[in-house]
Amino acid sequence: MPFHEKPRFPRGFACASRHIGLKPDAKDLALFVSEVDAFAAAVFTRNQFPGAPVILGRETMKGGRLRGIVVNSKISNVATGEAGVQNARRMAAAAAEECGTTADRFLVSSTGVIGVPLPIDVIEMGLHGMSEELQDDPLVGAEGIMTTDTYAKALSMSVGDATITWVAKGAGMIEPNMATMLAYIFTDAALSAETLDGMLRAAVRVSLNMLSVDTDTSTSDTCVIMANGLAGAVDNKAFAEALTSGCLRITEMLARDGEGATRLLRVTAKGAKSVSDARRIAKSLVNSPLIKTMVHGADPNVGRILMAVGKVFDATIVPSKTSASVNGMEVVKNGARVTFDDARARAALTTDTVDIVVDLGLGGEMATAYGCDLSAGYITENAAYYSS
Amino acid sequence: MPFHEKPRFPRGFACASRHIGLKPDAKDLALFVSEVDAFAAAVFTRNQFPGAPVILGRETMKGGRLRGIVVNSKISNVATGEAGVQNARRMAAAAAEECGTTADRFLVSSTGVIGVPLPIDVIEMGLHGMSEELQDDPLVGAEGIMTTDTYAKALSMSVGDATITWVAKGAGMIEPNMATMLAYIFTDAALSAETLDGMLRAAVRVSLNMLSVDTDTSTSDTCVIMANGLAGAVDNKAFAEALTSGCLRITEMLARDGEGATRLLRVTAKGAKSVSDARRIAKSLVNSPLIKTMVHGADPNVGRILMAVGKVFDATIVPSKTSASVNGMEVVKNGARVTFDDARARAALTTDTVDIVVDLGLGGEMATAYGCDLSAGYITENAAYYSS
Repeated sequence: MPFHEKPRFPRGFACASRHIGLKPDAKDLALFVSEVDAFAAAVFTRNQFPGAPVILGRETMKGGRLRGIVVNSKISNVATGEAGVQNARRMAAAAAEECGTTADRFLVSSTGVIGVPLPIDVIEMGLHGMSEELQDDPLVGAEGIMTTDTYAKALSMSVGDATITWVAKGAGMIEPNMATMLAYIFTDAALSAETLDGMLRAAVRVSLNMLSVDTDTSTSDTCVIMANGLAGAVDNKAFAEALTSGCLRITEMLARDGEGATRLLRVTAKGAKSVSDARRIAKSLVNSPLIKTMVHGADPNVGRILMAVGKVFDATIVPSKTSASVNGMEVVKNGARVTFDDARARAALTTDTVDIVVDLGLGGEMATAYGCDLSAGYITENAAYYSS
Repeated sequence: MPFHEKPRFPRGFACASRHIGLKPDAKDLALFVSEVDAFAAAVFTRNQFPGAPVILGRETMKGGRLRGIVVNSKISNVATGEAGVQNARRMAAAAAEECGTTADRFLVSSTGVIGVPLPIDVIEMGLHGMSEELQDDPLVGAEGIMTTDTYAKALSMSVGDATITWVAKGAGMIEPNMATMLAYIFTDAALSAETLDGMLRAAVRVSLNMLSVDTDTSTSDTCVIMANGLAGAVDNKAFAEALTSGCLRITEMLARDGEGATRLLRVTAKGAKSVSDARRIAKSLVNSPLIKTMVHGADPNVGRILMAVGKVFDATIVPSKTSASVNGMEVVKNGARVTFDDARARAALTTDTVDIVVDLGLGGEMATAYGCDLSAGYITENAAYYSS
């Protein structure tokens, strides 16, 4: 399904973003609002130290309805104790007041440094008058939620008479589990909270939950969908398919913009005995520093593929049945390296997207994981993230 | 227990190493030999694509006796199929003939690039006359087994009248499981194969199996101990303690010389409900790219410690009881970041060894994991390892 050339919002949605001084000069506060209450569903991080906004968010989502989302970047409000949760509540209340609704209708997100108190007074003041700046461009909101992303990420697509819009951020501390960093999805389709929940979980399972930039699961991961119903009913199957395809596209955008990334790494494990084996093997390759540096250097050290398959100790693997290819070029057959032309292999690893396919030769299950190469840029960004 | 200032062999052991042309100019073949048969025990990689030498080694170790070990570096003889196993057998036979014993008394190791055929003719020729070059300096053998190690690693220690000597290599593709890359231990103490096996597994469990440079488990990991009995019986308890302390020291040496490493990172998880929780949490921190880059940059972004604890989804953790320190300086208390002086924290992260201690506040179990920081040097070495 084709995405719109320029992303736009569904009926009744709008956003605004501002620089309020949390970052030295970039935008650091964003507001996403629906004209009317929307049914909503969300998935959050499985990290055992969830941030205050996640703790509050789980409570808020019990209502199954949202009017809007308020997000600050630069400070994550994680590991801030009970005071942090109170600050998240104040942030929801301030956004709700600005938009003429109640605090239980606002989902709060914060992203950035862990363990630093949220300057809630600055945020409360910063929200004043923001509802007058609401506009139709999702990229405006996307800009306000960025941390180390190199560009703002938004997408939109039509499904029948309805529209779906995605706004997301990613970059580092990314191996989502139940959700990715921050991904907000808006639609004017009429769908119940329960239907949205099922569709969101199914879409996230094959997309954001198969993404890993660095194996580190953020304490703030949040993926939420709001459906305000202004476009009426849609074909549920078409909607679910569109939702999944957009989540996959967003996943690839986040992978490709991983910290220091120069290439998208896409690994498919097929011929597996179980989906669980396929998922774990695909993730093992996407997370292996030696696979990631091989892709970065376009160095056809393809034996590492077998190492990364074999380190999933409890997956069903038969070495003599395992084959692998890189961008369609067979490099491993029946568990042994194939003789190939080095220059050709090097060229296959130099493309913008590197597809590694592992065929376990054992069954019919498969899974795809999404990541990126590992470069010196990742080190540079993260060796001085806190101080910069 | 003190290590000898200059490492030496136990009675009856000697080694030799040569450059036979596998590497451009460094030593690439090593021989370790006992004058008489020794009882022996070994642990090997759990990777499901074990190299040919590991496949053969498991067979050889069933005998419980070894006369020697023959090792080549640069080519690992992994993913080389049945021909690879035949080549490993020829390598054992050639070493045995050179030393006047039978092939079933020789353990073979190969380390280096995966998937490239072993030039067995070169190795067979290279072994000719090597037994005449045997000498007492373990560092001579250590030199022949290096890949990306920056220096040769050997240690020795006295236990009563006996001596224990360690020779090892490490650097990259290191998250051993059942053993590390290559670690050879020699002693003249009289100990049965069964006793050695129990002692080796106990020592490796808290040392080499708690080491991780990059989460990647090699297909060639081998740790073997040979005891030729020439010094007679020893106090078993003292011997087991010495064995563990030497394995811990070797583990720290391997961690500190991890590819691109500039610091030793030592993480202790204490106050855990179970040893398994403590081991997984300590490993989670040692393996987290965001902890490793924080240590590299000496950037006190200590909230990442909680992220890395919390991503062990199934460990028992109570956020409000979790505390942490860096080189003795408290940075997290009761699940929240402590206010601290940035300059002091930065200084604590700039030492040659960085000790992170996480106290879960829940029980009496603990574990320590060993690793290193993540630097651009790791990327550089691995983005072009195959071609260089």
